[in-house]
Amino acid sequence: MKVSELSQRSGVSVSSIKYYLREGLLTGGVQTATNQAAYSEQHIRRLRLIRSLIDIGGLSISHVRATLAEVDDESTPMHDAFGAVMHGLDEAPTETASTDIQTAYDEVQEWLSSRGWDIDPDAPAPHRLAELVATLRQFDFPTTLTDFDSVADMIERTAHIEVEYARALQDRTAAVETMLIGTVILERAIVEVRRLALEAASARIDIAPRTTTRRSP
Amino acid sequence: MKVSELSQRSGVSVSSIKYYLREGLLTGGVQTATNQAAYSEQHIRRLRLIRSLIDIGGLSISHVRATLAEVDDESTPMHDAFGAVMHGLDEAPTETASTDIQTAYDEVQEWLSSRGWDIDPDAPAPHRLAELVATLRQFDFPTTLTDFDSVADMIERTAHIEVEYARALQDRTAAVETMLIGTVILERAIVEVRRLALEAASARIDIAPRTTTRRSP
Repeated sequence: MKVSELSQRSGVSVSSIKYYLREGLLTGGVQTATNQAAYSEQHIRRLRLIRSLIDIGGLSISHVRATLAEVDDESTPMHDAFGAVMHGLDEAPTETASTDIQTAYDEVQEWLSSRGWDIDPDAPAPHRLAELVATLRQFDFPTTLTDFDSVADMIERTAHIEVEYARALQDRTAAVETMLIGTVILERAIVEVRRLALEAASARIDIAPRTTTRRSP
Repeated sequence: MKVSELSQRSGVSVSSIKYYLREGLLTGGVQTATNQAAYSEQHIRRLRLIRSLIDIGGLSISHVRATLAEVDDESTPMHDAFGAVMHGLDEAPTETASTDIQTAYDEVQEWLSSRGWDIDPDAPAPHRLAELVATLRQFDFPTTLTDFDSVADMIERTAHIEVEYARALQDRTAAVETMLIGTVILERAIVEVRRLALEAASARIDIAPRTTTRRSP
């Protein structure tokens, strides 16, 4: 198909397609005339992944490039390709952390070890979690990492199934896309479910007659 | 204390304080001279709530005003004050939804009824959840709302405790602040824990020898 059809079928504008070609994110089509190339179904799937990484993952062009490089290099373990996506979703902080955050960060690392979770040193998530724990403490929430154990237990059970499912896909483009969607869209859905649960709990308390909490002596 | 000390102790600039005073978010201090007013500890706590709503909740000034109005009106049930915070965290879509999203939205409403969750018609969360479900389906994830039942069950158990805890605080400013932090910071922490769990699961699959899944016949 011509670039115009590729644009129409993928929903990506011709100028964006040309930009991705120049940036090397998309390989050129098969040259059919001096100024014309033929594109295939693979280009459509590749464009869908590029758009997902940008629109859904919020990845920068350089992170998209790094991710696609891992996807394309068949000798790279899929874990590294997933890592490129995961670490492109956020950035590790560049400034030196405050003492409170540093303390929380050490606790996060200890907690990860205790769970046996093997996390890349460049991953932004441990830094973010440390910042959030420090913020909770600043607002007098007496948070420790073990408070997250029950939610971590639950997530751990499904995480393995989710990753196995993505890995089982033969196609590396599809596997990375599945992992991205499974990470970003599902995490947002969980956030919305939680907000709904909180609103429902608040509504229930308002209509329910006040009961005194009984404590065992 | 003078405005300069209020600024120093709250970490909010004098110009921001003056802006909040003009916008009516902060009540003026007690006039001590023609051009001077005395501020109290209550102003510090109020400023902390305003900054939290803006910096952590991402609320617009008009949403901050609406929330503070509910906090100040002692006759307003706390549920409405929480609602003002919750609904200020996001916006309900203004455009008409696509057919796919509308279908998902109807399913979300049905699911909420089935769970007995009483949600305000203006809440943005059901719309967001519908959009996310539609996106998952677009990427060939065969998602139904019942897929969220187990996570909803778990969240539901802690949501009630969390809301009860915030409600138990005598001070309305403190209750709203606790609810805001509990909602926004904890949901982000859960997201980070989930990302870590996925990375750990991926790492584990890479090092583990491939085992065949046994299924009972």
